[in-house]
Amino acid sequence: MPRQIRLNAFDMNCIGHQSPGLWTHPNDRADTYNTLEYWTDLARILERGKFDALFLADVLGIYDVYNQSPNTALEHAVQVPVNDPLMVVPAMAMVTEHLGFGVTCALSYELPYPFARRMSTLDHLTKGRIGWNIVTGYLDSAARGMGMPRQKAHDDRYDVAEDYMQAAYKLWEASWEDTAVLRDRQSRRFADPSKIHRILHEGPHFRVDAIHLCEPSPQRTPVLFQAGASNKGRDFAARHAECVFINGPSKKVVGNIVTDLRHRAAAAGRDPSDLIIFTMMTVITDTTTAKAHDKYQNYLGYVSEEGALALMSGWTGLDFGAMRPTDIVRFDNKANAQTSALEAFTTADPDRTWTVGEIARHAAIGGRSPVLIGSGAEIAEQLQAWVEETGVDGFNLAYTLTPGTFADMADFVVPELQSRGLFKHDYAPGTFREKLFGRGPRLPATHPAAALRP
Amino acid sequence: MPRQIRLNAFDMNCIGHQSPGLWTHPNDRADTYNTLEYWTDLARILERGKFDALFLADVLGIYDVYNQSPNTALEHAVQVPVNDPLMVVPAMAMVTEHLGFGVTCALSYELPYPFARRMSTLDHLTKGRIGWNIVTGYLDSAARGMGMPRQKAHDDRYDVAEDYMQAAYKLWEASWEDTAVLRDRQSRRFADPSKIHRILHEGPHFRVDAIHLCEPSPQRTPVLFQAGASNKGRDFAARHAECVFINGPSKKVVGNIVTDLRHRAAAAGRDPSDLIIFTMMTVITDTTTAKAHDKYQNYLGYVSEEGALALMSGWTGLDFGAMRPTDIVRFDNKANAQTSALEAFTTADPDRTWTVGEIARHAAIGGRSPVLIGSGAEIAEQLQAWVEETGVDGFNLAYTLTPGTFADMADFVVPELQSRGLFKHDYAPGTFREKLFGRGPRLPATHPAAALRP
Repeated sequence: MPRQIRLNAFDMNCIGHQSPGLWTHPNDRADTYNTLEYWTDLARILERGKFDALFLADVLGIYDVYNQSPNTALEHAVQVPVNDPLMVVPAMAMVTEHLGFGVTCALSYELPYPFARRMSTLDHLTKGRIGWNIVTGYLDSAARGMGMPRQKAHDDRYDVAEDYMQAAYKLWEASWEDTAVLRDRQSRRFADPSKIHRILHEGPHFRVDAIHLCEPSPQRTPVLFQAGASNKGRDFAARHAECVFINGPSKKVVGNIVTDLRHRAAAAGRDPSDLIIFTMMTVITDTTTAKAHDKYQNYLGYVSEEGALALMSGWTGLDFGAMRPTDIVRFDNKANAQTSALEAFTTADPDRTWTVGEIARHAAIGGRSPVLIGSGAEIAEQLQAWVEETGVDGFNLAYTLTPGTFADMADFVVPELQSRGLFKHDYAPGTFREKLFGRGPRLPATHPAAALRP
Repeated sequence: MPRQIRLNAFDMNCIGHQSPGLWTHPNDRADTYNTLEYWTDLARILERGKFDALFLADVLGIYDVYNQSPNTALEHAVQVPVNDPLMVVPAMAMVTEHLGFGVTCALSYELPYPFARRMSTLDHLTKGRIGWNIVTGYLDSAARGMGMPRQKAHDDRYDVAEDYMQAAYKLWEASWEDTAVLRDRQSRRFADPSKIHRILHEGPHFRVDAIHLCEPSPQRTPVLFQAGASNKGRDFAARHAECVFINGPSKKVVGNIVTDLRHRAAAAGRDPSDLIIFTMMTVITDTTTAKAHDKYQNYLGYVSEEGALALMSGWTGLDFGAMRPTDIVRFDNKANAQTSALEAFTTADPDRTWTVGEIARHAAIGGRSPVLIGSGAEIAEQLQAWVEETGVDGFNLAYTLTPGTFADMADFVVPELQSRGLFKHDYAPGTFREKLFGRGPRLPATHPAAALRP
C-alpha cells in the first residue's frame, strides 16, 4: 500500500488568514468567524472529507511592521481581529467524532500550571482529540500588550520554551499515576492519594510546586505540533514535536527541510518516522482544469496586495511599506532569524530575484505557500509528487475561501486521492495520537517526556 | 407585579462541589463532569427551568489545609480534580438560546491582554451571554502552582484587582469605537482604523500598550459578578459588580449584607438597584413534603463529613483535622479575613456555639448555605420569604445531586414560583445584561468603566 497522505485544514480565529482581501468575495464566510455556526459547519465539512485535523494558527498581536502602523492590517482584516482559538474547539468536538484539533498557543505569557489544566480539560472534552502547536511568538506588538517593551531575543525564547515543556510534561505525565483514579462508588473512594504526586519543577524560567489539577486525560500530553524554521526551532521540533508544520516554495526547499528534520530527530534519539511533517499548500480546484483556473482568475479580483505586504512585513520584520514595488528584495541571512519566510521566497530559485510587487502578488493568495490549480485528479497527482519527491507526510491546507476551499478539497481531491490508494477511506479508531501514529494514546517511550513518568 | 426572583444554578467543573460524598449516590452524574454531554444536558435542563444563569465556581489549587495534606480532598474528590470552566461554555451555548453563563476566573495569574480576548471571544460566540465572576484566589496551593511561595496578602489582592479591572475595561470599552467596524465588501474595508485606538495602561501592577484584539462583542465588558465578603471585597463589589454572590446562614445575616452592599453601591455613585444580589441556597424538593424529607434522609447516607471539613479548612484557613469533633469552634475576627465563612456559621445565632462535628455535618450538604427541604409549594413560599425579608434578588442554587437537583427545581419549584407571579414565564430578549437589567447591552453610564469610553 502506498504511503498515506495526511491532511490538515489550516485556519485561524480571524477573517483574513493567508489570503488577504478574499473575505470580500461573495462566497466567503470568513467574516462569520465569531459565530459557533461557522466553526461547526467547517468541522462537519472536514470530517466529511476525512481531514486528519483542523490546525488553528494564532497570534497575540497585530501586524504593525508595514508602514510602522497597524492601519493596513485593521482596514483589511489581516489576521485582526483575532479571537481566542481554544474557545471554538468544544463546539466543533460536539458535532464531530474523529477530527483532530491542533491549536496554536503561545507559551511566552501563560504559566504552565493553568495552561496544562486548560489542555487537559480539552483532551477530556474531545475524548483525546487535542493537539498543541507550541509557539513562542514573533510580534513585538504582542509583547507590548503584556507590558513588555519587546519580544525576548529569538534564541532566548527557545530556552524559555524548553523549560516550559519540562514543567508541562511533569504536570501531564508525572503527577497522577495510571491507576490513581478509582471512581469507586462502593468504597466511596474517588482516587488513591498515594498514587498522586506533587510535582516540583525549579527551572531557570518557571517554578511549579503542585499536583496537576486534572485527572489523566486520554492522551495526557496533547499531540505536539511545532513550526520552527530556524536552527534552534528545528532542534526544538526534532526533540519535542510529533507533528511539524513547515513551509517552502518548491519541492527542493521542502525536501531539504524534511531530510534535515529527520536527521535531527534521529540525533535526538527518536525514530525519524515519529515525526509527521506537514508542508503548507494552497489548492484551487474544481471539476475541470478550466473551471479551476477560472476560479483562480476570479479570486485575483478580490485579493489585497497591501494586506499581503502587511503580512510579509510582520513575518520578516522588514517594512515593505518603505520600499517601492519595483525594488528587488535581498535576503541578508544575518539580519533577523525571522526572515526565513523571505529566505524561502528569495532562494527558492537561485536564478531569479523578487521585487516587492511580485512578493505582494504571490503572497496575496495562500501567503507563503505554493499554489496548486487544477482538477481533482491533477491536484491529487501533484500532491502525490510532492510527497514522493520531498518525503513530506502531508499538507497543511490554507484556504482562499472558507469553508469553500475545504469543501472543494473534500469533494474533488479526496476521492481522487482515495482511488489512488493515497488517502484513508475511514478514520482509524482511538485518540488523535492513535489515528496519526497507529500507537498510543500516550507519548512513545522514545519521547523525552516519557522519562519523567513516575 | 411582585418582584421577580432570579435563579442561578451553581456548579463547578469538578465532581464534589458543595456536597462532598454525594457523587457516590447512584443518581448523581457529577463524575461525568469531564464530558460534553454532562454540560449540554445540564444547560438544557436549566433553560427548560428558565434559570437566569449557570454560575461556575473555580479554584486553581487544592484544599490541603485539612490535616495539612491534600489527601482527603483527593480521596473524596472535594473540588479536585477541577477542570477549566471556560471550556464548557461554548458547547452549552450551542444547545441553548437564553441561558447566561457566569464564569469564575482568577485574575491573579493571567494578564489582562489575553484574558480580555478570551472573554470577548466567548461574548461573541454566546451572542452576549457571558459573565465573569472576578476572584483573586484564596488557596496558597494555587500560588505554589504558579511558582510563588504563597498568595499575596488579602488586601493587596484587591489592589491588584482594581488595577486589573482598569486595564481590562480599557481593552473592552475604549479600544474600538462603536462605528469602527464597517464589514463592507463593496468598499473592501473591514474597519476604519481611525476609530480603533491603542490603549495605554500604566498601573502599579499591570502595563498594557495594545489595541484590543477583538472587534466589539455584544456586551463588550461581560456581566460582572463578584463574591467578596470582607470589607475590601464588599467595597470592590459595590464599585464594580453588577451581580453579587453572597452567603449567609440566616435571613438576619443575609439581610444585613444586602443592606450594607446597597449602601456601599450608593456611596460609590451607583444606583443601589444596579446590584443584583444572589444568596447561596440548597434546595431538596419533590412532589410532597414527605418525599422531600425522604430524599434528604437518603442523601445523608452518602455524605462525606471528612470532605466537608476539608472544604471548611480550605475556606477558613483553619486545620479542623487538628481538632476533635467535640471541640467548640471560636471565631477570632482578627485571625484571618478568610474566616468569614466560619463567622457566618458561628455568629448566625449568638445563643449557640458550634462543635467541629456539627460543622462537618452541616457543611456536608450544601457547604455553607442554608438547606431548604419541602414540596415545591413550600420551597416557593420559603424563597419568597427570604426575598421579602432580606431584600436579596435571588438565589445561587447549589446542588446535592447533579443534574437532579436542578431538574427538581425546574419541575417542582419553578411552576409554583410562576403561579405566584414571582418568576418569569419566558426569558426577556437580548443579551445576558439586557435579560437581567432590562437595559444594555453595555454597562450603564453610572458604572466606573463607562468613564473610560472614548
